[in-house]
Amino acid sequence: MTRHLHLNLFIYPDGHHEAAWRHPDSETDRILDISYYQELAQKAEAAKFDAVFFADGPSLAENIRYAARFRLEPITVMTAIVAATERIGVIGTASTTYTEPYNLARQLSALDHLSKGRAGWNIVTTGAADAALNFGLDAHPLHRDRYARAEEYVDVITKLWDSWEDDAVVADRESGLFADTDKIHRVDHDGEYFSVRGPLNAPRSPQGRPVYVQAGSSEDGRAFAARWAEAIFTAHQTLGSAQEFYADIKQRAQAGGRDPRGLKVLPGISPFIGSTAQEAEDLHQQLNDLTQPEYSLAQLLRLTGVDLSSYDLDGPFPREVIDTDGERSEGSRFQLVLDIVEREDPTLRQLCHRLAGARGHRVVTGTPDQVADTIQQWAENGAADGFNVMPPWLPGGIDVFIEEVVPILRRRGLFREEYTGSTLRDHLGLVRPDSQYAPTPQKETA
Amino acid sequence: MTRHLHLNLFIYPDGHHEAAWRHPDSETDRILDISYYQELAQKAEAAKFDAVFFADGPSLAENIRYAARFRLEPITVMTAIVAATERIGVIGTASTTYTEPYNLARQLSALDHLSKGRAGWNIVTTGAADAALNFGLDAHPLHRDRYARAEEYVDVITKLWDSWEDDAVVADRESGLFADTDKIHRVDHDGEYFSVRGPLNAPRSPQGRPVYVQAGSSEDGRAFAARWAEAIFTAHQTLGSAQEFYADIKQRAQAGGRDPRGLKVLPGISPFIGSTAQEAEDLHQQLNDLTQPEYSLAQLLRLTGVDLSSYDLDGPFPREVIDTDGERSEGSRFQLVLDIVEREDPTLRQLCHRLAGARGHRVVTGTPDQVADTIQQWAENGAADGFNVMPPWLPGGIDVFIEEVVPILRRRGLFREEYTGSTLRDHLGLVRPDSQYAPTPQKETA
Repeated sequence: MTRHLHLNLFIYPDGHHEAAWRHPDSETDRILDISYYQELAQKAEAAKFDAVFFADGPSLAENIRYAARFRLEPITVMTAIVAATERIGVIGTASTTYTEPYNLARQLSALDHLSKGRAGWNIVTTGAADAALNFGLDAHPLHRDRYARAEEYVDVITKLWDSWEDDAVVADRESGLFADTDKIHRVDHDGEYFSVRGPLNAPRSPQGRPVYVQAGSSEDGRAFAARWAEAIFTAHQTLGSAQEFYADIKQRAQAGGRDPRGLKVLPGISPFIGSTAQEAEDLHQQLNDLTQPEYSLAQLLRLTGVDLSSYDLDGPFPREVIDTDGERSEGSRFQLVLDIVEREDPTLRQLCHRLAGARGHRVVTGTPDQVADTIQQWAENGAADGFNVMPPWLPGGIDVFIEEVVPILRRRGLFREEYTGSTLRDHLGLVRPDSQYAPTPQKETA
Repeated sequence: MTRHLHLNLFIYPDGHHEAAWRHPDSETDRILDISYYQELAQKAEAAKFDAVFFADGPSLAENIRYAARFRLEPITVMTAIVAATERIGVIGTASTTYTEPYNLARQLSALDHLSKGRAGWNIVTTGAADAALNFGLDAHPLHRDRYARAEEYVDVITKLWDSWEDDAVVADRESGLFADTDKIHRVDHDGEYFSVRGPLNAPRSPQGRPVYVQAGSSEDGRAFAARWAEAIFTAHQTLGSAQEFYADIKQRAQAGGRDPRGLKVLPGISPFIGSTAQEAEDLHQQLNDLTQPEYSLAQLLRLTGVDLSSYDLDGPFPREVIDTDGERSEGSRFQLVLDIVEREDPTLRQLCHRLAGARGHRVVTGTPDQVADTIQQWAENGAADGFNVMPPWLPGGIDVFIEEVVPILRRRGLFREEYTGSTLRDHLGLVRPDSQYAPTPQKETA
């Protein structure tokens, strides 16, 4: 069986484990240096990864005191990366709640032009409530309202990206016609959240539209993804959970009239790799030993809405204090934390350690073969079309994955030896969309 | 006399003359290719220019039909340029009317980090009224209201850039202290236009703040520039007008308690260069012959608010139809057009040609020595600290300036042979500002 997995490198400054910056092999002194990020992307490109991936949020994490949780703005970082690479895609997070569609449309269109078709947009509604206070709002909009705005936002931005037909630029020196304005369209959107006339002020980009990526797995998130997403970044602790999600989201896409192959499911995976299983466990333990409860509890507060700092770290998790009916419970990560508690009955400290590696994404600890086995198992059993690889620390955590695990995946026929196309859509096997304003192609009307 | 001028290369896709894209030596087929812009910046860097400069506006020019007047979004373009250069600064335009300060603060901070201190922000309130329709507004805010918002915007964004003291990042692996949160400050701004809690979500950038550039010369614009600007891009047709502006703006800065040397005045200059004066005139005429009245009249409509398309192109300019008391008259370019009409009594076509080269900036036509003479005259007579060089067409128009004019300026002791610093502030001779939240330095309290 030849099956081509998709692999993204999800870059956090020092790595995904919350104590990564304290690891002796991390390069904490370089995490504000763009050459560090360019080198990581170049490594991923040499390994033929589909893309590098960046999270984002427009506020400062409270626990910056204990970890390298600042945010370098992703559009700038991605642009610097495409300037230093040739083929690999870049996927960056931007919020539909805290940006204007005309501005974001311009920036992602420019990134797609500059990269010759390698841009992807991870569409989020922003989870961190305190972002509201940086944008003149008294309160973060409710989960459902954020998704309602997101729906309209993606509709508007899609119109803007379609507003120039592909052949609108004529540039005929002789006649003096630069652009055929019959092929440039106002979008005249007038909705509940946005009123945007358009057109965009730049020609259509190489991919037509950047790749639409989405990362929410709540009910609202699934409905949104089934309608819009071309790739989904999702968090699952177990094969069963991932399979349920995979089947559900593909079915929803199909029910909405989409080809389910046009929607790639990419769970996060954070691999601790050792030459023996014990060595991998030791590495994991070494990082967990460097965690700080103040950081972990602040993260739990963000996920669950409850301040647990007065509870005994080595006592059982106080599940009775969690409000399972509140606004917070609509987020997909809330449920994931509760599932771990149900399944594993951890102490508070054990739960902190469970979440320290990858904030609820699947952590795999083992030899290269064992890590490859998990990847293969998920890929061949309806749980994943690929993975967002989240190295516990950087750069070593991606080096060992590329050197030890990728060759095994190739030997098993699971991962490409070479790129076969030049755009991110090519890598992911996604079609290039026509502009909604373009005349119906001949082949369909003939 | 040794005097160091500042020179920026102001990049328009095909060049500043509105018919540049039709010039046989322009590279119209490359104006969506980032390597084209990177090469232009590399040429300017090899010539030791201070910076490259980008205009912007968040709407599509009506006259896209007749000229290459799309807008590639500047923050992305600048980022791709700093990734391909080492020393030259980048100055990009962003609107205080149509962006959110928290978002722009993040992007310009990231650009300053990625470039190791080479970022500048050209602060504009946006002149094109139809931008409003892309952002959910029924009408473009009035000139004075845009400036009121700009004042508060710059206050807020400055607080955000200052919100991390320079030494807030500790990154002590041993103790586990990543950032000293006593040195990270909420900004708690609550004003008429903005309510922003902060802090920014990334460490302070190499320059502390990007260089503040401003480009309006109206009464509101001058007051704003005197308070905030560290460099001013301004349009003047005559030495006298430039001298008046230069003296006025330096005096205003001084009256406001600033060192006037901390505010550099950089008029635009668009040079048509030939080996003889006649050759330069012919080149200018060749480009003017390629202009299209539909484009020029649309530009005049934007500058004056009046549709002149029903008037005889070869008749006198119909000055009686211009409303000199309206909202439009508060813009500095409006006055500049009227001044040309008063001084030169042109036909409508002649006025179109006068504005075709550089939209009202000074056009100089002559031999390399004659162009250098004008630059020297303005620099030595209180009219300019440097220039924003606006090549009529690209890349040839900057090649000839660098090859023929820059060596003359160097021989005359007017322009640097080498960079002496590494940041844009270094190039411009500007101090690096302390954070307003930092304790008063010892030297001041001792």
